[in-house]
Amino acid sequence: MLIQELTNEDNLNLLAHMHLGRLACAQGAQPYVVPFYFAYQNNYLYSFATIGQRIEWMRANPLVCVETDEVASSEEWVSVIIFGRYEELPNTPERKMERELAYELLKQKANWWEPGYAKTIIRGTARSLDPVYFRIQIVQITGHRGTPDSAEVIDAKSPTIEHADKQSIHNILGALRKRLFSK
Amino acid sequence: MLIQELTNEDNLNLLAHMHLGRLACAQGAQPYVVPFYFAYQNNYLYSFATIGQRIEWMRANPLVCVETDEVASSEEWVSVIIFGRYEELPNTPERKMERELAYELLKQKANWWEPGYAKTIIRGTARSLDPVYFRIQIVQITGHRGTPDSAEVIDAKSPTIEHADKQSIHNILGALRKRLFSK
Repeated sequence: MLIQELTNEDNLNLLAHMHLGRLACAQGAQPYVVPFYFAYQNNYLYSFATIGQRIEWMRANPLVCVETDEVASSEEWVSVIIFGRYEELPNTPERKMERELAYELLKQKANWWEPGYAKTIIRGTARSLDPVYFRIQIVQITGHRGTPDSAEVIDAKSPTIEHADKQSIHNILGALRKRLFSK
Repeated sequence: MLIQELTNEDNLNLLAHMHLGRLACAQGAQPYVVPFYFAYQNNYLYSFATIGQRIEWMRANPLVCVETDEVASSEEWVSVIIFGRYEELPNTPERKMERELAYELLKQKANWWEPGYAKTIIRGTARSLDPVYFRIQIVQITGHRGTPDSAEVIDAKSPTIEHADKQSIHNILGALRKRLFSK
């Protein structure tokens, strides 16, 4: 397998057509990760959720990490990881433009928002249906693409081209086993 | 859409056949999430990786969160979230049994381990190929299943049955829009 680091342009192009990601936040030393749908525009990921643990945690600590990927197999995948900052879009005149933008972007994703919007009754108590609009400011972004060894992937624009061992699976397993049990 | 909370038995059955997840760790207030492959057995998720940021962070702070899911569409999905504890399986006589178990479990997943094992050259420096074996002890597990409204899903064993609004997409969008722009 080859693993290539993606260019910044590649990363942003991928974000523009990806909508399902995983959003990690943290409270104290405890991280928390949930699936979420988003829409990318101009260095921000737009999304919304109903009030819940993730919103409370991100209000208290706005540092987040987002991972999004397309995995065809363990040898063929692309993964983008973002360090970012949570920003709530409250229902105020100052934020009206961003909320409208978020709403317009989000409604283009057919049905995407239903997991965030679905009325949920947990242990007899209805969860609030008021949506919280937010966006993630992208502070740092990195992406990688894995491709099978057999594919001749040469991308002169890519800053690094990374090579996996060309041994067969059998050989790699043997080496791994040796390393595992040797002292 | 209906959202159901899964039973503990459902969660463990799902884990037994799921292998791709997202692993979140944290350093200070900054969370970090990466895709990873795992094999479940007896309250532990087994995996390995080459030395890198995630291993360094988990060594310093063993509190982690794992999310795994199967998303057919925004209305049809299952998602399991685990709060857990990172435990390294060093190459010592005391951990020989667990390492063998990890190795046996992991090699059953054809090719799964290649992303963790692939030799990677980043900015001219080869990354170490020594694998770090680890497991995640499951401390808390919760799971949810989303199903389209039209499906008659009734599971008497489930502790809670959750109901989404039965309005059409059009109606929900209208309500959302109203809430968005009203003061």
